[in-house]
Amino acid sequence: MVSQIRIALDAMGGDHGPSVVVPGAMMAAERHPDAVFQMFGDEAAIRAALAAHPDLAARVTIRHTDVAIKMTDKPSQALRYGRRTSSMWMALEAVKKGEADVAISAGNTGALMAMAKFCIRTMPQIDRPAIAAMWPTMRGESIVLDVGASIGADAQHLVDLAIMGGAMAQIVLGIDRPSVGLLNVGVEEIKGLEEIKAAGRLLREAALPHLDYRGFVEGDDIGRGTVDVVVTEGFTGNIALKTAEGTAKQMAQVLREAMTGSLLSKLGYLLAKGAFQALRAKMDPRRVNGGVFLGLDGVVIKSHGGADAVGFAGAIQVGYDMVRQELLTKIREAVALAQEARAAAPPVVTAAEAVETG
Amino acid sequence: MVSQIRIALDAMGGDHGPSVVVPGAMMAAERHPDAVFQMFGDEAAIRAALAAHPDLAARVTIRHTDVAIKMTDKPSQALRYGRRTSSMWMALEAVKKGEADVAISAGNTGALMAMAKFCIRTMPQIDRPAIAAMWPTMRGESIVLDVGASIGADAQHLVDLAIMGGAMAQIVLGIDRPSVGLLNVGVEEIKGLEEIKAAGRLLREAALPHLDYRGFVEGDDIGRGTVDVVVTEGFTGNIALKTAEGTAKQMAQVLREAMTGSLLSKLGYLLAKGAFQALRAKMDPRRVNGGVFLGLDGVVIKSHGGADAVGFAGAIQVGYDMVRQELLTKIREAVALAQEARAAAPPVVTAAEAVETG
Repeated sequence: MVSQIRIALDAMGGDHGPSVVVPGAMMAAERHPDAVFQMFGDEAAIRAALAAHPDLAARVTIRHTDVAIKMTDKPSQALRYGRRTSSMWMALEAVKKGEADVAISAGNTGALMAMAKFCIRTMPQIDRPAIAAMWPTMRGESIVLDVGASIGADAQHLVDLAIMGGAMAQIVLGIDRPSVGLLNVGVEEIKGLEEIKAAGRLLREAALPHLDYRGFVEGDDIGRGTVDVVVTEGFTGNIALKTAEGTAKQMAQVLREAMTGSLLSKLGYLLAKGAFQALRAKMDPRRVNGGVFLGLDGVVIKSHGGADAVGFAGAIQVGYDMVRQELLTKIREAVALAQEARAAAPPVVTAAEAVETG
Repeated sequence: MVSQIRIALDAMGGDHGPSVVVPGAMMAAERHPDAVFQMFGDEAAIRAALAAHPDLAARVTIRHTDVAIKMTDKPSQALRYGRRTSSMWMALEAVKKGEADVAISAGNTGALMAMAKFCIRTMPQIDRPAIAAMWPTMRGESIVLDVGASIGADAQHLVDLAIMGGAMAQIVLGIDRPSVGLLNVGVEEIKGLEEIKAAGRLLREAALPHLDYRGFVEGDDIGRGTVDVVVTEGFTGNIALKTAEGTAKQMAQVLREAMTGSLLSKLGYLLAKGAFQALRAKMDPRRVNGGVFLGLDGVVIKSHGGADAVGFAGAIQVGYDMVRQELLTKIREAVALAQEARAAAPPVVTAAEAVETG
């Protein structure tokens, strides 16, 4: 196990840059005396933000660059002008070169994924990377993946997602054998789900020691927290995530309007303020900030672009835990076990055979 | 225009059967003196429920059958034992034969769709039917389709969905030229969206008089009410719908727990009770009960299985409006216009050509 955790930060990422990244790092540094930081970006701006935190400054190496990726850039644009030169790329490159254990950016998600694939590359056993999101549920938190790294998935990729999500759940949820479900629709005999059915068979047959496969789950099972890890391909996962965000915002607005509608309800609101704060805290996205890029040959964490220092510190925490608890080793071992199980198992029926005739 | 609206009801559908269907019909009958009803199912049970409503009884024809489709049946099972004989089938058949203008059932969705396809069949211009849901938003209500009739969609099917959803929006939202968006993910250069891009081009070029195509929308735009009609294929639509339901339930639970946590918050809750009731009313699924089956050569409405009489009356209302305002004619005209526009336009580039090289 490494003695220090070396954290590479894209200081220019997100809506606020160093004014959020530096205080976020400060909070993480207080929590973890074994963490050291490399900050990539505009040196003057980083130094200015660090001036208020001399204790942190002693644990920070600054690497200057003028180039910062904009939130509105397309991934191809970002790669064109930001490859090798941008703060985002340099943070990823530090991981690639083994100079850092984890890279964290609050920047443009598409650009970060494109650069991470290009710079760090996927693990040899994994075809395509994925983005895993922490999802607050009625039971606590679950992991949902892929929420938008790539579109479409064959059975093997869905199995890879289950394995990677399971390894992440062991770390962030602290569960030895996390439960996993494949996201599906309830309509029984609808066609087109052959890859999901095939993935289910593969997971059942592999009977992995660190993964408790529970079968199909539906959209409402996510919020219910039916399983620890919900697996789906990136298009549906992205739509589900944003739809849930939209619904949560909508309900919060309706509630706010209702609570300020009359004098009585305003008074009621004042009395129940503590309860509302508890509600907000429970649904607070800052608590679970930090999308994890999985399948890469290195640990990369995406903080929400609009995160404040508390939120960014949360993303650093996720990255710290992933390194300390050896996410990559866990994934490699689980993939190897699944491949052994697969080699030993009878061949999976083809999609055409799997279509029900009923 | 027809003088009477003849409504065929599957009296055995849903969790409650005639005890909800009959009082629901009573409410609809009071609202619409021009509505007459055919009720299919167990005659004794229907008569017993009608005994309390003599005014309604005079406008009801009962058609007895012993066979009722169970909520847990697979569509293929339901077709095997319920074809021709079940209350669900008989209600659909009344529409097929021209004896009723609309069929309404609170029964098993998969079975209803399978039977509707088999009995009523799709319009000649439409390949596959869809299920459209009313979705409460920050602005009011939107229509989302397809929420689970079939999986996957090529560009032409997405255009058909836009047209059918637009026609439905004209009726239920009372908007001459409803705005329409194609559900997509924000990541710009991700691959696999060729059919959505192609559908966008087709809609833009067709420039239909009754449809204001606004481009792509993301998951959080649904709850925001960015457009009147959100178009997506059935797998993603079903996941989005159920995910939103799950999130709404989850927030309601967290709020309930928060509000009963302390004496102060309980008192606050009492004072603000009116506000909470307003919130509940706004999010009340009964207000917007009635999934519309689109693309069939007849009007079929699916009520929620757990709906009460108010909810079922809402589903009847939706069916009544669809007939009175000639949904099928509107769809046929819009499809014909789109086909003309398409014949006049240059050919759409193929998926392979459309893939960005960036």
